[in-house]
Amino acid sequence: MAHLSPHDVMTMFMALATLLGCAKLAAEFMQKIGQPPILGEISVGIFLGPTVLGHYRPHLYEVLFPTTGPMPIVLDTVTTLGVVFFLLTAGLEIDLRSIFRQGKSALLVSIFGVAFPFGAGFLTAEIFPQYMGAETGANSLIFALFVGTALSISALPVIAKILMDLNLLRTEMGTVIISSAMFDDLVGWILFSFVLGMLHPPAGGSIGDGVKHTIILVLLFVGGTLTLGRWLIDKILPVLQAHTTWPGGVLGFIFTLTMAGAAFTEYAGIHAVFGAFVIGIAVGESGHLRKRTSEHIHQIVTNVFAPFFFASIGLRTNFVSNFHLGLTATVIGVACIGKLLGAGWGARLGGMDRTSSLAVGLAMNARGAMEIILGILALQAGLIREDMFVAMVVMALLTSLISAPAIHFLIRRRRKLTLRDTVTAKLFLPNLAATTRLGALKEMCEVAAEAASNAPERLFRLVSERERILASGWEDELAVPYARVNGLSHPLVVVAKSSGVDFDARDGKPARLIILILTGDNQSQQDLLGDVSKLFSHREAVDRAVHANNFLELQAALNAPVQ
Amino acid sequence: MAHLSPHDVMTMFMALATLLGCAKLAAEFMQKIGQPPILGEISVGIFLGPTVLGHYRPHLYEVLFPTTGPMPIVLDTVTTLGVVFFLLTAGLEIDLRSIFRQGKSALLVSIFGVAFPFGAGFLTAEIFPQYMGAETGANSLIFALFVGTALSISALPVIAKILMDLNLLRTEMGTVIISSAMFDDLVGWILFSFVLGMLHPPAGGSIGDGVKHTIILVLLFVGGTLTLGRWLIDKILPVLQAHTTWPGGVLGFIFTLTMAGAAFTEYAGIHAVFGAFVIGIAVGESGHLRKRTSEHIHQIVTNVFAPFFFASIGLRTNFVSNFHLGLTATVIGVACIGKLLGAGWGARLGGMDRTSSLAVGLAMNARGAMEIILGILALQAGLIREDMFVAMVVMALLTSLISAPAIHFLIRRRRKLTLRDTVTAKLFLPNLAATTRLGALKEMCEVAAEAASNAPERLFRLVSERERILASGWEDELAVPYARVNGLSHPLVVVAKSSGVDFDARDGKPARLIILILTGDNQSQQDLLGDVSKLFSHREAVDRAVHANNFLELQAALNAPVQ
Repeated sequence: MAHLSPHDVMTMFMALATLLGCAKLAAEFMQKIGQPPILGEISVGIFLGPTVLGHYRPHLYEVLFPTTGPMPIVLDTVTTLGVVFFLLTAGLEIDLRSIFRQGKSALLVSIFGVAFPFGAGFLTAEIFPQYMGAETGANSLIFALFVGTALSISALPVIAKILMDLNLLRTEMGTVIISSAMFDDLVGWILFSFVLGMLHPPAGGSIGDGVKHTIILVLLFVGGTLTLGRWLIDKILPVLQAHTTWPGGVLGFIFTLTMAGAAFTEYAGIHAVFGAFVIGIAVGESGHLRKRTSEHIHQIVTNVFAPFFFASIGLRTNFVSNFHLGLTATVIGVACIGKLLGAGWGARLGGMDRTSSLAVGLAMNARGAMEIILGILALQAGLIREDMFVAMVVMALLTSLISAPAIHFLIRRRRKLTLRDTVTAKLFLPNLAATTRLGALKEMCEVAAEAASNAPERLFRLVSERERILASGWEDELAVPYARVNGLSHPLVVVAKSSGVDFDARDGKPARLIILILTGDNQSQQDLLGDVSKLFSHREAVDRAVHANNFLELQAALNAPVQ
Repeated sequence: MAHLSPHDVMTMFMALATLLGCAKLAAEFMQKIGQPPILGEISVGIFLGPTVLGHYRPHLYEVLFPTTGPMPIVLDTVTTLGVVFFLLTAGLEIDLRSIFRQGKSALLVSIFGVAFPFGAGFLTAEIFPQYMGAETGANSLIFALFVGTALSISALPVIAKILMDLNLLRTEMGTVIISSAMFDDLVGWILFSFVLGMLHPPAGGSIGDGVKHTIILVLLFVGGTLTLGRWLIDKILPVLQAHTTWPGGVLGFIFTLTMAGAAFTEYAGIHAVFGAFVIGIAVGESGHLRKRTSEHIHQIVTNVFAPFFFASIGLRTNFVSNFHLGLTATVIGVACIGKLLGAGWGARLGGMDRTSSLAVGLAMNARGAMEIILGILALQAGLIREDMFVAMVVMALLTSLISAPAIHFLIRRRRKLTLRDTVTAKLFLPNLAATTRLGALKEMCEVAAEAASNAPERLFRLVSERERILASGWEDELAVPYARVNGLSHPLVVVAKSSGVDFDARDGKPARLIILILTGDNQSQQDLLGDVSKLFSHREAVDRAVHANNFLELQAALNAPVQ
């Protein structure tokens, strides 16, 4: 067997460490400014790739990402694993039942949301194939089908994140959007599998035979996996959970199945990612899949393996020299018009008002990982030119970038306030001196008054009045006094640690963690109280906060879900 | 960039799915019969490799694991990632403080346990290099150093598992063994890094320079990482936990650091696994690393990535044609005598009695992953012949296979009884008819009496007498009546689900899950009661068992830790 030399192994780990480290830094930065992390991962790749590093420091680039020797194969192996495992987790998040249960508006949004952008893309590509970036010699029908498909797919994870941030996920509009996005993903992938099947006829067949062969195999695979396969998996999971080590046995089973599905869809003439996606859906449907098992997969895949893939996108081409303004603008225009009109009109026909319908269109218009994966496969297959690939990546990034601010502007939904955004180092009292309830409130109100340039007496009066009506001791040594303070420009949260002050809690225990919430409006108060009750639903969470020795450790305690 | 063709991608996933699926099946089988799972993973690889599949079905073997084209590089990439990540988790489990805190006996066991097998291996290899499998032209001093090192290393995970199974982990003997095994691992790897440094001088230097260069770099790396690095990591982790998504930010940081360490040690002239191991130790030392973060890494690495590596060991050579009985017997003999004498004598000098000392020697003699990783690296470096590699793998498998039964025989420690081993489908009553406490006990005793060929009246009398003295209602709708039944040949556990029977629980709730424990001896009773209290420490665990619709789901509920 050929082996990687020590030098190859060194280069491999250097390249992977650089990709992962930079991608995670950029992703966290994007999160901080409220944008999808994938934007950061992809931008970093463009920076590390031929566009910037390869252009300005070609020698360093060649050391990190050699284009000769075994390294291209090594990187391709790792990024292929990354994208296949990423599609597994995407599949795990699809809920077939909620798709089948969709109401009228969701159905209309789903169908129009696919049909319009598909039609717009197909027609544009069919009429102007050269302009739209068809590779010389590419079959124009296949090319047009591809462009239609690529413009009609949505980006479930990005959309879910946007809705969650805007506090819209559990509204009726949120449900309509999520189930429509799932439907679009599913239909888009099935369409794309046919495009790929037409491109790669299985060995020995002509193109016509190949398509037939691929279509039959794909239909058998999807149909079989989502019915019989799903049923079997649901029977096998409890057996594994009863008779093998947990979660090891289940994890081994899921990954083996995923890779077998990936191998089968490659054999059928479409790409491995499709097999992983369908297996993910089938496994995710089982009520026996425990949350902790999918949590292990989700965390390691989205935080370690998927970033390898997303960062490697930028290594594939030069995003400056292959940037074609007219083409990019056309792709963005056709994609946005098709999706906004289609999904928006579907929502309007389904009975939504004009503003909500536009918001639905804007949300469905967010794209991301899926388009880009399609673009890479089409690029590798020689179907599209590099300038079209660049246009697709820019379109995906731009649409997911504008969705959240646009919806926000449209329906003026605020982000939910969280405790973590509101606490400050100044308002953290690690050692409360007071030992009585009123003493503690007074001490905390004084600190708050200083921060808000308000009179401490006024704050104390408001807080103690409320305290008299309803004691603010919760269980597990936590007390949460609060009050509405008219005219307060921004919410104030004072966090104090004490050796124990009686706040008349139901369980009789004195409070060791006291969180005082002062807000100018009801909505902020509700947000913050809700966040406190979510954060401290386990007593371990209170313990962790009580043991915070400094403000940093307090922030860490407020950042992480417990158990 | 060169790319994997669709056919390559298909082969890759077929090969990986086969390796993982078979490895997990065999590992679970080994677990069932009480052996370390790694034995199964390695055996499966030997079966799938040139030894069996390649010998009897060469065509199929060539389809699954092609030796030409990009596939060898693909497999090498995946298995290298597997072993590097595995060493990260091994490092996370090392507790430096407990090594530094060792008492006199642990120190003696540690030092003698390394020195004796090292000396025995070194001398044998120095005197009979050809017979001991030195590759033609290999430097005999380096070879002898390698053999000494390879025989002196232990296998921490295997040893920990054996001690846990025999209920010895928390005894004084267990502590001595574990901290000595950690010490041996650390010393063995540092020794081995020098062997590798002598083998691979860094580019441009002579061998003498190379060794000096490597030794300086390795000492700087180990020293720097375990002091300054450890301190920095401990400062950075809380910042990440406070300011990045959790656990994503921390996971990205750990994997980036691991791969950077891996790249550095390859650069220094030793192997990537060493860097990952040292980084693992430094990260594991931080009190800020949360259990859930390391749990994500541990589960995915040991259940998905490590098996790729262990199963691939068998692909490297033919274990039948390269099997040399004399050599294998010599390696086993020297390894066992060196370790048993060294560690055993160390324990004796430290004040242990003769039997315990022998048990310590037997435990320290268990080998596994580490020897085999060393063997692969030496094989790749052209230091040892294939027959020596096979002898080392057989030695590692055999010593870890005999340890548990030998210690068991020596000190007659029973395995702890668990509820899961004791429940049977016959003694599971999914719908208890009785609605009173005595009625329920009577109904359950009748079933138990039938299974034990005992009089139901006698069992009921014993159980209800105990019940009169102390009510058996626990909290959270669980009741655990029990009784000693003289002459009962094996413990009986009856599990019943009820719509609610009052068992006088502290929280006043009627019991919906009733577990009746009947044993002939006190030890079994203690074991089973302890297991019940461990399993049902969260109310979710009781819920899961109460919702078990059949015996399989009950087994699953008893198999898994909750949240």
